[in-house]
Amino acid sequence: MRVYDVIDAKKNRRALTAEEIRFFVARVADGSATDSQIAAFCMATLLNGMTDEECFLLTDAMAASGERAPRPKGAGVFADKHSTGGVSDSTTLILVPVLASLGVKCAKYSGRGLAHTGGTLDKLESFAGVRVDLTPAQFEAQVERVGAAVSGQTDATVPADKRMYAVRDVTATVDSIPLIASSVMSKKLASFADVILLDVKYGDGAFMKTPEEAEKLARLMTEIGARAGRRMLAAVTCMDAPLGDAVGCNAEVNEVLEILRGEKENDLSRLSLFHAEKLLQAAEGVSAAEAEARVRESVRSGRALDKLGEIVAAQGGRAEDVYKTLPMAKNKRTVFARKSGRLQVFALALGRACAALGGGRTHEGGGIDHAAGILLKKRQGAYVKEGEPLAEIYSSADVEEGAALAESAFCISEKKIKDRPLVYAFIGGKEQSSV
Amino acid sequence: MRVYDVIDAKKNRRALTAEEIRFFVARVADGSATDSQIAAFCMATLLNGMTDEECFLLTDAMAASGERAPRPKGAGVFADKHSTGGVSDSTTLILVPVLASLGVKCAKYSGRGLAHTGGTLDKLESFAGVRVDLTPAQFEAQVERVGAAVSGQTDATVPADKRMYAVRDVTATVDSIPLIASSVMSKKLASFADVILLDVKYGDGAFMKTPEEAEKLARLMTEIGARAGRRMLAAVTCMDAPLGDAVGCNAEVNEVLEILRGEKENDLSRLSLFHAEKLLQAAEGVSAAEAEARVRESVRSGRALDKLGEIVAAQGGRAEDVYKTLPMAKNKRTVFARKSGRLQVFALALGRACAALGGGRTHEGGGIDHAAGILLKKRQGAYVKEGEPLAEIYSSADVEEGAALAESAFCISEKKIKDRPLVYAFIGGKEQSSV
Repeated sequence: MRVYDVIDAKKNRRALTAEEIRFFVARVADGSATDSQIAAFCMATLLNGMTDEECFLLTDAMAASGERAPRPKGAGVFADKHSTGGVSDSTTLILVPVLASLGVKCAKYSGRGLAHTGGTLDKLESFAGVRVDLTPAQFEAQVERVGAAVSGQTDATVPADKRMYAVRDVTATVDSIPLIASSVMSKKLASFADVILLDVKYGDGAFMKTPEEAEKLARLMTEIGARAGRRMLAAVTCMDAPLGDAVGCNAEVNEVLEILRGEKENDLSRLSLFHAEKLLQAAEGVSAAEAEARVRESVRSGRALDKLGEIVAAQGGRAEDVYKTLPMAKNKRTVFARKSGRLQVFALALGRACAALGGGRTHEGGGIDHAAGILLKKRQGAYVKEGEPLAEIYSSADVEEGAALAESAFCISEKKIKDRPLVYAFIGGKEQSSV
Repeated sequence: MRVYDVIDAKKNRRALTAEEIRFFVARVADGSATDSQIAAFCMATLLNGMTDEECFLLTDAMAASGERAPRPKGAGVFADKHSTGGVSDSTTLILVPVLASLGVKCAKYSGRGLAHTGGTLDKLESFAGVRVDLTPAQFEAQVERVGAAVSGQTDATVPADKRMYAVRDVTATVDSIPLIASSVMSKKLASFADVILLDVKYGDGAFMKTPEEAEKLARLMTEIGARAGRRMLAAVTCMDAPLGDAVGCNAEVNEVLEILRGEKENDLSRLSLFHAEKLLQAAEGVSAAEAEARVRESVRSGRALDKLGEIVAAQGGRAEDVYKTLPMAKNKRTVFARKSGRLQVFALALGRACAALGGGRTHEGGGIDHAAGILLKKRQGAYVKEGEPLAEIYSSADVEEGAALAESAFCISEKKIKDRPLVYAFIGGKEQSSV
């Protein structure tokens, strides 16, 4: 068998065998398949599709291509959550300490921000001294001791995905449902989480533009996880407008701290606690009502905030920083409403504006300005008056380009905004909850 | 514009604009597009196709991507011929000296053999001292002085094709009609030939398996050439069985010399002289009857053979070698008929057997044993008796593997062989000739 033959079969619309898929993934992982062969395989897969069976086999082979974190020896259920990426989406930094404070252990592998989307690892690094490159042994030990760890997976974890993703990024082969599903789920299957909640975004600021596409991806991923013996939950959620009121690392962390102090309620707080309740129900088998009560008490009592301090401290930061407010960059501009009317806020444009301000990553491996960002003063759907401030823009360098881009993220009109549901569908829960 | 956007458009089945195609080809030629991006583009093109307009634009941009041989200053029509590759196909080495001896100047750019197909440049190098890496200036001067030159194009000629072909070869993207057409025709458009005859093969030993596919490719290529102002002819010819009775460099050159001495008549001689007549008709506007008479006289008089000697001498060899016979390798095996019956000879298997004997190239840039080869003693369709010799196998090294492979190229049965026409279709000629 040659890598060539596997590409040729996919090109000719023949479903690949387990042997062919394992052979291909092994050659990707050991470097003997060329980048051009990976690109041809990905384009053929994007255009010709894959059966669910092929996608499961691909995911499984990718998960097996590298090191796996050892499962902690202690008892208990381990939870994880994954978002397909959005703007102003800090749900991880809220639900992980909430769940850990309630005794649900969180083994959370996260990623970095790219293009218009933010990344949990970047945000966590807003706390001085925090490290997010835990070894599998450090990760395992911290989950056991603190009840939660948030770290990146090492290069050795899923090497096949690392190569394939780098190739897909430059060859217009990112937007393939089987390739997205196998990329996300290979990293999940390489970890030891028992209960996994997938937050699959749809809308303006998401990869999937329609809720139907997002649901299709969510169903495929939950199927893959279930076949691998994991308890899968998935929410299909809206990413037309930013989830919270802040974009950028320090800005988003400050909003997380506000929510954990019980001082703020918005779509971000609602979705984060909804996810936490769903994971608690699945992990502990409690009712929806009890899950809701325990999650709320965790925030009200301050135990969730304390737990975030513990996690920060365990990863090299100072616990007391979670009771402070992180600074914003020195150059500030305010965006004002140019006329009166109903406000629409486009997540994609706002995410891009944040990147232009230095607060996002324009290319893989690039740096990020944690203090740069955008604070929304008005939310999508609000009626605004001409001259009212819509947002504050912060940058350490030139603020103009980002400010101009941020302006383009707002639209004021007379017509009513079509509000799409925050949670369009939920898969895998026993009861349907509303947010 | 980014290379990414061009791939994305082709992936989404949008016809590319002239600007997009020129941009992409320029990035391929200057090395800034990655191999992975070329692979993704080729796979998307293979699966989604191209309009004839796109294919013409691609060919034109590729032809313009490098150096072009200057057109000789002298008057006259310049002829070229291209075959899509076959087994025991030495038509070039016959028709070029025939035409040149009749005053039709041949500016023949050729290639090397790969896999089961032979290459004209390798065969010409069977004559000691011959060089096939003429500079554009040397090439032009020789066409003017001798009336013909046979050389490879330099790396600088069509750099975009060189990169694309190398990528296609390992990514299962060779068998795309628009990609084949643009690859072949970009090299033709980069040369200065006025009249171009394409020999598009179909059958067991060809890339195109059916005559319909081959005709489609032939029509697309003649259309591209015509749009670029060239006079185009194309023959769709059968490559089920080897064309001549010899496979391997020295063996095929010896057969060419026999034919030019007027000592042999078979499909190879018939097709070579057919092509020569068609090119003579197109170049000089003579009737089919006159073209046939002049071509025959060129061989009968020995002037074609003398011209081959002139070409060999002009490219560094000795003219007198064309009146000799080249040696075959020392180790010899004979393949005998295992039973009596009607003989079938598979071109593909015979070409592969020759490569296994060392007489073909198994990878680009690999060496070749000119003295290795196969001499057929019986042709396709013949009735053979058990124990009769079918072929002689020659190798400088171990002859066994090649001999075993060669045996698999023969099939003897009671049933009549389905004979497919040698010339299935001819495009661009004023009259339909038969071979």
